[in-house]
Amino acid sequence: MTSAENWSQNYLRYEFSQPTLLERALTHRSYSAQNNERLEFLGDAVLGAVIAEALHQQEQAVDEGTLTRLRASLVKGDSLAEIAAGLHLGDILLLGGGEARVGGHHKSSFLAGGLEAVFGAVFLDGGYAAARTVITEVFRARLAALPDFDQLKDPKTLLQEALQARGVALPVYTVMSESGPSHDPQFEVMCRIEQLKTETIGRASSRRKAEQAAAADAFAMLSQ
Amino acid sequence: MTSAENWSQNYLRYEFSQPTLLERALTHRSYSAQNNERLEFLGDAVLGAVIAEALHQQEQAVDEGTLTRLRASLVKGDSLAEIAAGLHLGDILLLGGGEARVGGHHKSSFLAGGLEAVFGAVFLDGGYAAARTVITEVFRARLAALPDFDQLKDPKTLLQEALQARGVALPVYTVMSESGPSHDPQFEVMCRIEQLKTETIGRASSRRKAEQAAAADAFAMLSQ
Repeated sequence: MTSAENWSQNYLRYEFSQPTLLERALTHRSYSAQNNERLEFLGDAVLGAVIAEALHQQEQAVDEGTLTRLRASLVKGDSLAEIAAGLHLGDILLLGGGEARVGGHHKSSFLAGGLEAVFGAVFLDGGYAAARTVITEVFRARLAALPDFDQLKDPKTLLQEALQARGVALPVYTVMSESGPSHDPQFEVMCRIEQLKTETIGRASSRRKAEQAAAADAFAMLSQ
Repeated sequence: MTSAENWSQNYLRYEFSQPTLLERALTHRSYSAQNNERLEFLGDAVLGAVIAEALHQQEQAVDEGTLTRLRASLVKGDSLAEIAAGLHLGDILLLGGGEARVGGHHKSSFLAGGLEAVFGAVFLDGGYAAARTVITEVFRARLAALPDFDQLKDPKTLLQEALQARGVALPVYTVMSESGPSHDPQFEVMCRIEQLKTETIGRASSRRKAEQAAAADAFAMLSQ
């Protein structure tokens, strides 16, 4: 049994029928043209579905916006890299010599991508049920200790609180344009923070969503 | 049998074991607090996984970036609304009186959301395999006639071509900042189009991705 197969049995409690899928999942593009990028694409999507299913089942009283934010907080790159590090995935990741020398085995994006690729490989090897078992197991602690819903505030609220904390006057939202047919409108909203001389623009199918998009950009700039 | 159940059998070739799931999927929030928004969240994720699986299997020679763009083109709101319209989903969508009077039965976002909610309901009712069967069937024509990969150009290429078509000088990309630890860098790149007096900023974990993000925003502004 290869060290990768041992790793899968020990850390994922999953035995591959097709170990070449696991090998592929652990091969970074710096190592080979036959690498894990397509599996990462697949695994990212499967992870999204499994976490959506778990949250939908577990949080019966929570609205769709909060479910979306909870999922985003669980599957973001930082979370995946932390989980991958906990599984010592870096130890068995195949990297090209250059990346290996500069500490690639601990690079967050490599770990997160490798973990997604492993999920994709489990899905191809054992189907959705196998992927669900593996993913909910490695996410067990995080699913049991979800962030406070209070921490998952919408962008406008986050921006407002950040500005208040800095003693800066609140942003002004202005609809710049409204276009498209009535059954499919497009709104463009500017979020202007006078004191900081910043203007961000959000576009969406409703005024409310466009404001949130503009606020999200402003909050991101503020958080740099 | 209800008209919704008839619709599902005729258009989705799927018979619900739990028809209340289907009813919920067809209930817009303008109609009831017991509406389809949580199912839409779930269905969106399941749709993403099924389309990712189908593309991964069908397009063996295509890289991850192209798979991502192909999937985005298939599952975007416009595509979903068109498919939903073809399935006459608007005819059985439950809307509040106000929305029904202003033509809500033909509103793209309601149709797209309703279709995603139906996918979520099929998934809860019959599992991943049932959802895969239904989704790949309603996407059959689109999966068989994928957009030319040429049409799925990356944002920098799209922006460059749009500017050349307008006789405008090409954008200049400048790295504004590079921050974060070496294993998790953050790049901020500005895309400046001198003649149009536009500046957009992209942020990402690599210079290349930050440039693409800045180009995507500039292209979106140009396409307004």
